Amino acid sequence: MRIDLNSDLGESFGNYTLGMDSEVLKQVTSANVACGWHAGDPLIMEKTVRLCKERGVAVGAHPGYPDLMGFGRRKLDVTPDEARTYMQYQVGALSAFCAAADVPLQHIKLHGAFYNTACVEPRLADAVLDGIEAMNPGVYIMALSGSYIATKAKQRGLKVIQEVFADRGYTEQGTLVPRNQEGAFIKDPQEALERILQMIQKGTVVTNTGKEIEIVADSVCVHGDNPSALAFTATIREGLEKAGIEVCHFIGRD
Amino acid sequence: MRIDLNSDLGESFGNYTLGMDSEVLKQVTSANVACGWHAGDPLIMEKTVRLCKERGVAVGAHPGYPDLMGFGRRKLDVTPDEARTYMQYQVGALSAFCAAADVPLQHIKLHGAFYNTACVEPRLADAVLDGIEAMNPGVYIMALSGSYIATKAKQRGLKVIQEVFADRGYTEQGTLVPRNQEGAFIKDPQEALERILQMIQKGTVVTNTGKEIEIVADSVCVHGDNPSALAFTATIREGLEKAGIEVCHFIGRD
Amino acid sequence: MRIDLNSDLGESFGNYTLGMDSEVLKQVTSANVACGWHAGDPLIMEKTVRLCKERGVAVGAHPGYPDLMGFGRRKLDVTPDEARTYMQYQVGALSAFCAAADVPLQHIKLHGAFYNTACVEPRLADAVLDGIEAMNPGVYIMALSGSYIATKAKQRGLKVIQEVFADRGYTEQGTLVPRNQEGAFIKDPQEALERILQMIQKGTVVTNTGKEIEIVADSVCVHGDNPSALAFTATIREGLEKAGIEVCHFIGRD
Amino acid sequence: MRIDLNSDLGESFGNYTLGMDSEVLKQVTSANVACGWHAGDPLIMEKTVRLCKERGVAVGAHPGYPDLMGFGRRKLDVTPDEARTYMQYQVGALSAFCAAADVPLQHIKLHGAFYNTACVEPRLADAVLDGIEAMNPGVYIMALSGSYIATKAKQRGLKVIQEVFADRGYTEQGTLVPRNQEGAFIKDPQEALERILQMIQKGTVVTNTGKEIEIVADSVCVHGDNPSALAFTATIREGLEKAGIEVCHFIGRD
Repeated sequence: MRIDLNSDLGESFGNYTLGMDSEVLKQVTSANVACGWHAGDPLIMEKTVRLCKERGVAVGAHPGYPDLMGFGRRKLDVTPDEARTYMQYQVGALSAFCAAADVPLQHIKLHGAFYNTACVEPRLADAVLDGIEAMNPGVYIMALSGSYIATKAKQRGLKVIQEVFADRGYTEQGTLVPRNQEGAFIKDPQEALERILQMIQKGTVVTNTGKEIEIVADSVCVHGDNPSALAFTATIREGLEKAGIEVCHFIGRD
Repeated sequence: MRIDLNSDLGESFGNYTLGMDSEVLKQVTSANVACGWHAGDPLIMEKTVRLCKERGVAVGAHPGYPDLMGFGRRKLDVTPDEARTYMQYQVGALSAFCAAADVPLQHIKLHGAFYNTACVEPRLADAVLDGIEAMNPGVYIMALSGSYIATKAKQRGLKVIQEVFADRGYTEQGTLVPRNQEGAFIKDPQEALERILQMIQKGTVVTNTGKEIEIVADSVCVHGDNPSALAFTATIREGLEKAGIEVCHFIGRD
Repeated sequence: MRIDLNSDLGESFGNYTLGMDSEVLKQVTSANVACGWHAGDPLIMEKTVRLCKERGVAVGAHPGYPDLMGFGRRKLDVTPDEARTYMQYQVGALSAFCAAADVPLQHIKLHGAFYNTACVEPRLADAVLDGIEAMNPGVYIMALSGSYIATKAKQRGLKVIQEVFADRGYTEQGTLVPRNQEGAFIKDPQEALERILQMIQKGTVVTNTGKEIEIVADSVCVHGDNPSALAFTATIREGLEKAGIEVCHFIGRD
Repeated sequence: MRIDLNSDLGESFGNYTLGMDSEVLKQVTSANVACGWHAGDPLIMEKTVRLCKERGVAVGAHPGYPDLMGFGRRKLDVTPDEARTYMQYQVGALSAFCAAADVPLQHIKLHGAFYNTACVEPRLADAVLDGIEAMNPGVYIMALSGSYIATKAKQRGLKVIQEVFADRGYTEQGTLVPRNQEGAFIKDPQEALERILQMIQKGTVVTNTGKEIEIVADSVCVHGDNPSALAFTATIREGLEKAGIEVCHFIGRD
């Protein structure tokens, strides 16, 4: 039994520093590296890819909407053509730094509002998958476990990493409990750890209504932008290892 | 005897249209495709790469400074690290569209102020060459014939396309006569054609002082942003073909 | 009886030219000047304000979403605080050029997706009105005739210009027929002229269902981005003048 | 005897936080507020202006080059027309927030590379002064003491705040010792305080060559981006007050 731990990295920009990247790189096995549109710039991208290589962390591209001011978190009404090409542009940009550092690109994970929209809007999701298939059919697409885009990617024969959230509650539909509702967040790291273990070992999660539903957990999304997030992540990682789960990325798995 | 003809393409942006791309693609053999920083956007880049493929025109990346408002023509005081990573970011972005269209990336040609600076500032030129070597050592670098960066690239064993200008005068140093000086422009297309023929057939050009100097002409830079530029280009192309020069790009040359 | 004719102007950007501004300035009495976020840049803004002054055309600010790539036409999910401050930022920027040219700022008209959203979303509309009231309570707000924001502005005692569209059909609710539905566009300039005359003289318009509803027409929105739009606008203007309607802006009206 | 203390503020952007604004506002009497091009965004600008009002700190506009990625610190080769209109655009934008908060705009201080260039290049400096004179002749221009732009502004009858630096050495020409040379920085706060007192009380400063030259000190530039900068600034402020110098801004001075 094994699991991947992923986190967003490389979110600094120019003179602005964000995140505790060197610390979080000690905990995770996969990094979602910002590609310059919602965060990140070429210097940061190069540096982040190099740091990942040094620490043995797998590199993923983390494309977002063209909205630095809103950190890519605001819904923008893009067309399928825009979704496809915006994703390709940013993945290509990051791939240059992977090539220069001689590191493979493991995965693509959409960011923020782009991620949320592609999980539920078939037209955008299909466009993104078209774009990945045309550009780089061997790369993994990382997406919300059970979402439209994850399911559709599997059907197409693309490589998929289904991700779960350690710190979030789930509805009976398998979606995340919205942030403004009760049960949205799991704040106790021990509780979070137990939920993750259940997802990995039993393939189920208990929803906000108390029901047990099936869930596939290929990777757990964790955070590292502040000391308490780091401590939370460390608890998860240590607990997984103690439980005999191998924590590893997807590069080199057979 | 053969020669490449190159032109800047894909310089539209969002709602803004620039250039007569479909016309100029009938004349040239290589395209320098804007990469979204000084011009171009992902939709335009995808479309331009596809058009190039349809017309059999070789695709090159045309990275510029991050200055859409100034069209990349204003000198910006970047560091070598910035020069290297800015180039890589944009080349990577374009490469995604090449991969998606199954088209090779033939060359990289810097744009505007980035081009001018890298021709003469060793620190920036070396950084750009470092970046190309690390990222994609098989791609051609297209640069001003006889410039520092062209010479240095050759010494490193990189593939180089030395370009000459049909519509510009040359100094005894082999540099272009500055735009605000007499002799800067060759306006008569017949005169331009004869100068190009001399460059290809004799390997020399007559400078603004009347002296004949050596010059290497691998590719001729032409323009297509207005009807008279297109006519100028057509004269050059027809004249070259009549003189028995093969007009072709570098992909597939042995 | 009098009417204002307004058009979007100053939509060029850097090296990119858009619109036939010098021609359309001969037809309209009010200009909505882009403020640099969806179109326009400081050089264009200064030039446009100066041109307006020369031609006696009243200047309005035309703030849009921060989306140059999408020309401000894509819905972006902004908060009320963002809506208020984004509007203020851009209006302030244009006001500097008005001050430098010694021209009053007549009005503010939101652009594209910002306009459409503020017409119907009370939270955004109220935030925009709060911002105008705090910053410049003497300026007109130009908005869709009968819309939430126009009605609310009147209730607050703000100065309002209710605008109608010469080339668009209306629903029974007084909203524009969506662009993808039948009856969305009035293409015949004579028909458009007669509809505008009815709006001014009778205060009514015939909807896409054949019903006659009340409408207030303070200003007619016209276009000038291509020769046929210009001819359409000229027909409207000449027809209005022949019918004895005074075509004039709001500066200096008592 | 009195002196102004100024610092850069409002340099956060979107999701990125920079500077200890609420702390530094307790020490300074004038704030140079970033205007969205090299730093700052509309939400930050509004908040910063309101904070200044609450603390009785005078507000100044701090326009920079359009280079968020480089924080406005990189030289960009702009024309005089660009310099004038870029300054006006940003000052206008900030003025909107001043108007909304009912706070006067005390001064304009150029930022980074724009500041450095305008101090020494007459064409740019003259263009900036033209722009200020046309737009808002009653506002102060804050510039390096003894610089071309400060001197020229005085000759034109504009209101000038000549600023000195507490933490920098001076050459015999009255310019700052370049950052890469010996004597560039004054690190001891007591030494810095004594130098500032000499500038205010005697109107002189000792250069890096040991010579005493004349200098006008209307305002002292201090920093607040980290705890040690804050402590340095506190030492200066307390020392000035102990020496009987009134620390105050320019609004309301007769």
